[in-house]
Amino acid sequence: MSSNTFGKLFSVTTFGESHGPAIGCVIDGCPPGIAIAPDDFRHDLDRRATGRTRHTSQRNESDEVEILSGVYESVTTGTPIALLIRNTDQRSKDYAKIAEQFRPGHADYTYWQKYGIRDPRGGGRSSARETTMRVAAGVIAKKWLAQHFGVRVQGFLSQIGEIVPHGIDLSVIEDNPFFWPDAHQVGELEQYMDALRKSGDSVGARVDVVATGLPPGWGEPIYGKLDGELASALMSINAVKGVEIGDGFAVVAQKGSEHRDHMAPGGFASNHAGGILGGISTGQPLRCSVAFKPTSSLRLPVDSLDVHGNVVEVVTTGRHDPCVGIRATPICEAMVALVLMDQALRHRAQCGDVGSVTPRIPGSEPGG
Amino acid sequence: MSSNTFGKLFSVTTFGESHGPAIGCVIDGCPPGIAIAPDDFRHDLDRRATGRTRHTSQRNESDEVEILSGVYESVTTGTPIALLIRNTDQRSKDYAKIAEQFRPGHADYTYWQKYGIRDPRGGGRSSARETTMRVAAGVIAKKWLAQHFGVRVQGFLSQIGEIVPHGIDLSVIEDNPFFWPDAHQVGELEQYMDALRKSGDSVGARVDVVATGLPPGWGEPIYGKLDGELASALMSINAVKGVEIGDGFAVVAQKGSEHRDHMAPGGFASNHAGGILGGISTGQPLRCSVAFKPTSSLRLPVDSLDVHGNVVEVVTTGRHDPCVGIRATPICEAMVALVLMDQALRHRAQCGDVGSVTPRIPGSEPGG
Amino acid sequence: MSSNTFGKLFSVTTFGESHGPAIGCVIDGCPPGIAIAPDDFRHDLDRRATGRTRHTSQRNESDEVEILSGVYESVTTGTPIALLIRNTDQRSKDYAKIAEQFRPGHADYTYWQKYGIRDPRGGGRSSARETTMRVAAGVIAKKWLAQHFGVRVQGFLSQIGEIVPHGIDLSVIEDNPFFWPDAHQVGELEQYMDALRKSGDSVGARVDVVATGLPPGWGEPIYGKLDGELASALMSINAVKGVEIGDGFAVVAQKGSEHRDHMAPGGFASNHAGGILGGISTGQPLRCSVAFKPTSSLRLPVDSLDVHGNVVEVVTTGRHDPCVGIRATPICEAMVALVLMDQALRHRAQCGDVGSVTPRIPGSEPGG
Amino acid sequence: MSSNTFGKLFSVTTFGESHGPAIGCVIDGCPPGIAIAPDDFRHDLDRRATGRTRHTSQRNESDEVEILSGVYESVTTGTPIALLIRNTDQRSKDYAKIAEQFRPGHADYTYWQKYGIRDPRGGGRSSARETTMRVAAGVIAKKWLAQHFGVRVQGFLSQIGEIVPHGIDLSVIEDNPFFWPDAHQVGELEQYMDALRKSGDSVGARVDVVATGLPPGWGEPIYGKLDGELASALMSINAVKGVEIGDGFAVVAQKGSEHRDHMAPGGFASNHAGGILGGISTGQPLRCSVAFKPTSSLRLPVDSLDVHGNVVEVVTTGRHDPCVGIRATPICEAMVALVLMDQALRHRAQCGDVGSVTPRIPGSEPGG
Repeated sequence: MSSNTFGKLFSVTTFGESHGPAIGCVIDGCPPGIAIAPDDFRHDLDRRATGRTRHTSQRNESDEVEILSGVYESVTTGTPIALLIRNTDQRSKDYAKIAEQFRPGHADYTYWQKYGIRDPRGGGRSSARETTMRVAAGVIAKKWLAQHFGVRVQGFLSQIGEIVPHGIDLSVIEDNPFFWPDAHQVGELEQYMDALRKSGDSVGARVDVVATGLPPGWGEPIYGKLDGELASALMSINAVKGVEIGDGFAVVAQKGSEHRDHMAPGGFASNHAGGILGGISTGQPLRCSVAFKPTSSLRLPVDSLDVHGNVVEVVTTGRHDPCVGIRATPICEAMVALVLMDQALRHRAQCGDVGSVTPRIPGSEPGG
Repeated sequence: MSSNTFGKLFSVTTFGESHGPAIGCVIDGCPPGIAIAPDDFRHDLDRRATGRTRHTSQRNESDEVEILSGVYESVTTGTPIALLIRNTDQRSKDYAKIAEQFRPGHADYTYWQKYGIRDPRGGGRSSARETTMRVAAGVIAKKWLAQHFGVRVQGFLSQIGEIVPHGIDLSVIEDNPFFWPDAHQVGELEQYMDALRKSGDSVGARVDVVATGLPPGWGEPIYGKLDGELASALMSINAVKGVEIGDGFAVVAQKGSEHRDHMAPGGFASNHAGGILGGISTGQPLRCSVAFKPTSSLRLPVDSLDVHGNVVEVVTTGRHDPCVGIRATPICEAMVALVLMDQALRHRAQCGDVGSVTPRIPGSEPGG
Repeated sequence: MSSNTFGKLFSVTTFGESHGPAIGCVIDGCPPGIAIAPDDFRHDLDRRATGRTRHTSQRNESDEVEILSGVYESVTTGTPIALLIRNTDQRSKDYAKIAEQFRPGHADYTYWQKYGIRDPRGGGRSSARETTMRVAAGVIAKKWLAQHFGVRVQGFLSQIGEIVPHGIDLSVIEDNPFFWPDAHQVGELEQYMDALRKSGDSVGARVDVVATGLPPGWGEPIYGKLDGELASALMSINAVKGVEIGDGFAVVAQKGSEHRDHMAPGGFASNHAGGILGGISTGQPLRCSVAFKPTSSLRLPVDSLDVHGNVVEVVTTGRHDPCVGIRATPICEAMVALVLMDQALRHRAQCGDVGSVTPRIPGSEPGG
Repeated sequence: MSSNTFGKLFSVTTFGESHGPAIGCVIDGCPPGIAIAPDDFRHDLDRRATGRTRHTSQRNESDEVEILSGVYESVTTGTPIALLIRNTDQRSKDYAKIAEQFRPGHADYTYWQKYGIRDPRGGGRSSARETTMRVAAGVIAKKWLAQHFGVRVQGFLSQIGEIVPHGIDLSVIEDNPFFWPDAHQVGELEQYMDALRKSGDSVGARVDVVATGLPPGWGEPIYGKLDGELASALMSINAVKGVEIGDGFAVVAQKGSEHRDHMAPGGFASNHAGGILGGISTGQPLRCSVAFKPTSSLRLPVDSLDVHGNVVEVVTTGRHDPCVGIRATPICEAMVALVLMDQALRHRAQCGDVGSVTPRIPGSEPGG
């Protein structure tokens, strides 16, 4: 029950500090027979990487994945898969002067209170660098889900500050640096981000994730509900302050007659539920949404305390993202994929005999 | 890793169907020496119970708790505590005609797809009746947290439909049937609910929970974060579609300079974070918020499908809440208490030696 | 991770004290669609029950199982199955005088040291009465294993004191009160046990369990090995002090050329390994052996201490087994069945795709 | 619930194949503040290492431990500790010709049946090389146990083939290559092992482990019993076929009046129980014993099958131990230490308040 492990059957244990020798993970419970090579990780790690555009942190992480175990002749063997990435661009000197300071809005103070000691270099274990390994593990989950079920997991930015998309076109999100679903707004966003960066401030964002191709039946009531585990998975990402499934907080103002999704011979008539009822997938697209806070690492000075209780002025001069939500898109996708793969294996364990005897009605086809 | 078990060290396993012989739970890992008697459960179970006012379901559950084990001479012994409540007011005939129908917005269809079989009486396992045992287990957690740390967990309704409180006064929430924090609006709510009930429709709600008295240091990074576990705990409650910590989705439009909570010698200057940084408690009040969908069990007829794929008209004539969020307030409190108690024990296990050597700075006092 | 829960996917949580209101269990993760009725439990519970013959404790436990949940119209639904047995023959007065004494060889002292409090009535939670629920849960596992794989789990007594069977005939073990595999020795055992009972003393025993019909491939390296989990399962039974797999401690004096089981086209030539290699089943019969200590509850007086550190004379006048190993036979079977079912489900989860592509060679047929 | 993870709170996840790039582990849940440096691992890793004497495998493993995370300025921080050892002496050519053969007595066949694929180089994941990381993790556990409780864990060989010690003197076990407790027999053992090696055969062994300094109260009934977890921990070591606690299988022939350990004001009068009653430590020395089978990797040819079902002659020409039990001594110690540390943390979590109110009677002092 390590708290650095995610997943019950497809278990991912991550380790490593931002400026330590390396970060890595151990993936256990992976089915044998999946073709995996180091290059498979490149696409999603590049999507998450810093330094790709001027709108993200300029830290240059090479993120070369070494496969240490669990893969023989480029195929998974069913034994633990260990992945390792050496930290190459560490620049610890950026952080030396804040070793005794508590940066407001950061985990400095809470780690120090909990453990009585902390690694101050770049946030140590609390750095978002840890999420690199979530993305790497998610690559394997995405591949298996696609091959076995045709599941596709896709994330996009649905809000930056007060800017929202005018339309949703998932085909354009990989063509701009913001994972933004409306190509016409990219220029506006460029200007907004440039101004933000110059101001030294940061801003929040909302990320949506849609997963299609799920069969009905994934998810385990009561405390292993699909939505409950998605909530935990997404809330565990650095800077997340809210999670919604389907219509999310909009349901508060809805009437039951409006919210309940009708079933008809051609499929569900709508998808307010976001593809989950009673914690179990309906077969409709899974929809969830995540709120990212603005990073607290700003060039703008702020008063705070040091470990001795003295007032100090904190100025963060390191390389930070003005909007951490942007690069978080592939991280959200990865966490959704990890939840789905784990639930798929768990469903097969308990209900492996059910599929053959249960007729599927039309409503179970992905629709809505 | 039973999916009907919640908590790693303070583990609660629930069982039982809405209209089966009984519901119950087994609480394991409870510290010895806590005074517990059947009467201790009455207050919170009454707060959750149906039939107290005309604004909730008229099902009359007596909810008499029998303690089957783990308590000797009214004190916990450290062995598993089993609690049992017999189902007395079952009226299965209400549900007989929908045994082969899928009620829109319910788990009927997903349970049937997952398991190939379901108990149709009153929703079976997917009924909110299961949450009775969460409240019962939460009573023990609340008691221990209060005695050992002075922690207090309090929930209230912060929105029904489009109605929001004009003010927040926690001292009045137990004085009205809505757990509403503004006494002046109670009349308005009575009228609103009466009209809603007559219309045969239902509406969503938002519940806020505040926990005070937490020491800094509770919560385990990375996948055992305090906020991650709260998200899972709260999303696992029936009808929940969204969870927020601190400012929640409002952070999307915030600037970093606005969001980050300053630390000063007198304590934190604000609490946008909701009492958690890096997944660990700061010592400030914990704040979270939950969205409840409107129930789909309505007197208003709706087309749906049956297990053979035929179109059927569904009319729910059972006794249902027009706003399930109201009675959910003590359930949310219970889930928060269970998370906190579990994390408190886990913190003591790993960091039991730390407290004595770590000075507490003024900023660690509950403030903001 | 409740320590009163056994099994990762097929999870059994037991509760209850020897002389409390009831004992029970919650079985989670059970596949749906298994026919189960209260009568199914009777056979194995009777085999474990006291009071059947003069050679076991004369405590008269009725052991009527009530199914509280998880079964609808006599078929498992995939939701948690709660079983309950009320304690009817409690006679707490037998134990009143030893409430402050520590009985040598019992858990009185260790429970008191660990928890600072204990339920002294009949051993409380440490009583072998808890194993009733293991047997009940094992009934479901045995049934599923038999139906799906033709697995049969059978235990027998292979030693009492210094008496060993002259021959092994599994067809006779249900025909005598000792689960003894040699019908010619039953008279000798009757006399031995009568003399032992009159002496007021007790004796140890060895129980063997054989499971046939296992496919190759069950078991998870490294810490989830089939033999590792059997060892834990069997050692967790009251009074067990040793566990062997296959040839067990006899391997210490063996040569490698003697021990290694040859594979030939007709199957394995021998089964020194006991059906497990590298923690995974070979397809041969599974063989294990368990050592039960003699009970320490004797009519023979013994000096001990009380909770105040004073010397006291302890005489146990309650109803106790002169050889606890006898009734332990069905308990051992149940634990083996629980391990096998759990591993079968785990194997299906991770390796559900493998079976269809892996050819089985003759050596995989149960032989040896 | 990764099966490559050991321990609930002090969790050790190992990875790596015998001839892959590296082996390693991730230790989570470690208390902060423990001083750890790479040199700390050297002593126990050397004790386990091959190539030290002519009596063990001549494979030359350098076993240089790199600490990748969780340690800052040579002190544990409470975050996951990742340890890495590169495999340097791989000689895969030794194993090439048996890639399609099933070595009798090895996991070749079972891995292939389970996963449909296996890494044949040196046994892959099933190699005893994995136990290196158990020893490394055990070093941290031993250090913490010694510092906090004065616990000492010591193993020794108590039988090779049919040779048993004439006396037990723990002070001499580190002075001979056999961890043998009787200095006068070392010459005899040298001759025995030389003859065995020349014969091309192998032999089994028995290892005893004693842990002193345990307080009473460690261990969690029912399925988390201290002895149950020791059994699982020890049985999970490669080649183990039996585990005993205290008097082990000798209890089968004992009488209750002989077995039960009397309590007296000066402490326990004996220790047949091996320091555990009801799954909880008594405060006496913990005693357990483990049976190691003779390795099946012999120069002596043997008939077997290949993956196509053909009969083949298998001759193992690699470097193997004639008695794997010898080097297993520090592995057994490590597993005992890991169990004890995990239980110590779990005891602190649940019963952290008990110690201060429970008087310790003289019987709780390590005696017997």
